[in-house]
Amino acid sequence: MEKKVAVLAVNPVNGAGLFQYLELFFENGIPFKIFAVAETTQIKTNSGVSLQTDDVVANLKGKENDFDALVFACGDAMPKFSENSGKSENQDLLAVIKAFGDQRKLLIGHCVGGLLFDITGVATGKRLALHPFVQGVVKSAVSTNETFVIDGNFYTAQTEKTLHLLFPELLKMLK
Amino acid sequence: MEKKVAVLAVNPVNGAGLFQYLELFFENGIPFKIFAVAETTQIKTNSGVSLQTDDVVANLKGKENDFDALVFACGDAMPKFSENSGKSENQDLLAVIKAFGDQRKLLIGHCVGGLLFDITGVATGKRLALHPFVQGVVKSAVSTNETFVIDGNFYTAQTEKTLHLLFPELLKMLK
Repeated sequence: MEKKVAVLAVNPVNGAGLFQYLELFFENGIPFKIFAVAETTQIKTNSGVSLQTDDVVANLKGKENDFDALVFACGDAMPKFSENSGKSENQDLLAVIKAFGDQRKLLIGHCVGGLLFDITGVATGKRLALHPFVQGVVKSAVSTNETFVIDGNFYTAQTEKTLHLLFPELLKMLK
Repeated sequence: MEKKVAVLAVNPVNGAGLFQYLELFFENGIPFKIFAVAETTQIKTNSGVSLQTDDVVANLKGKENDFDALVFACGDAMPKFSENSGKSENQDLLAVIKAFGDQRKLLIGHCVGGLLFDITGVATGKRLALHPFVQGVVKSAVSTNETFVIDGNFYTAQTEKTLHLLFPELLKMLK
């Protein structure tokens, strides 16, 4: 049976990354729900387009059991993450990643996603693909310079431009 | 100087295709404006996400001189194009493509885009990349089964999954 996926979209989000996941899921009958890492469901892409998510990350907290996998869709919100990490939506983001990770659910992401998996402490010893800018700051996980990496329940791609290389194996796991 | 791009988005549009163009343009400082092939600026992706375009195609008619290039972002609206071709937004779509083509501006597109370039009569003798489903119905252009093709002012990719192969050369032309 298909796995149900919760998709986290930061604000602003890289639309090319986000919609490569969403159209893949749509075309393969994989159910998904999109949660904005924001106070409202109205967010923007890096490229400035307003779009509507299904819900906000605050409402995913405590509902991790409704899903089998979590996608982190990266975007231009992330370079300022450290200075905004106290905001409630970012605290919720970390809490949700930790809850999925603690339950050994699939954790999927690109670009800076792997760093968040590392920060929450759920990826200890796991090999991850990461954006070159953050490869040096990973602590408990194992940073790589590969285009994509699958290690246990972690599916990571270096950037949105290498996601398509990850997708064939990801699809096998989700279908 | 960067070329200014008008992006046509059908309704529903394949978000993976649309946002690969938009984030590429954004990241490279190429100015663009998005026109919905619809009566309103509120359209959906194939995957069901509502998004907001800058304007509608009716308002691009007669303003072709404001742009140097036209992108056709394909989507699930197209399998029903023939039965909806009489609708004003689809008539406007064909008129706009013809106007850009007649002025020898850059025509860029994937999937069924090449078929529209053919239908409007502006691609006579040009080699195009097309979705396998429509390769047999092209009339005055030259249909190919290649992942992407550049021929004169025509930049086409077979599907949204091969767009990234077209982009390096497209970028050289637009920057």
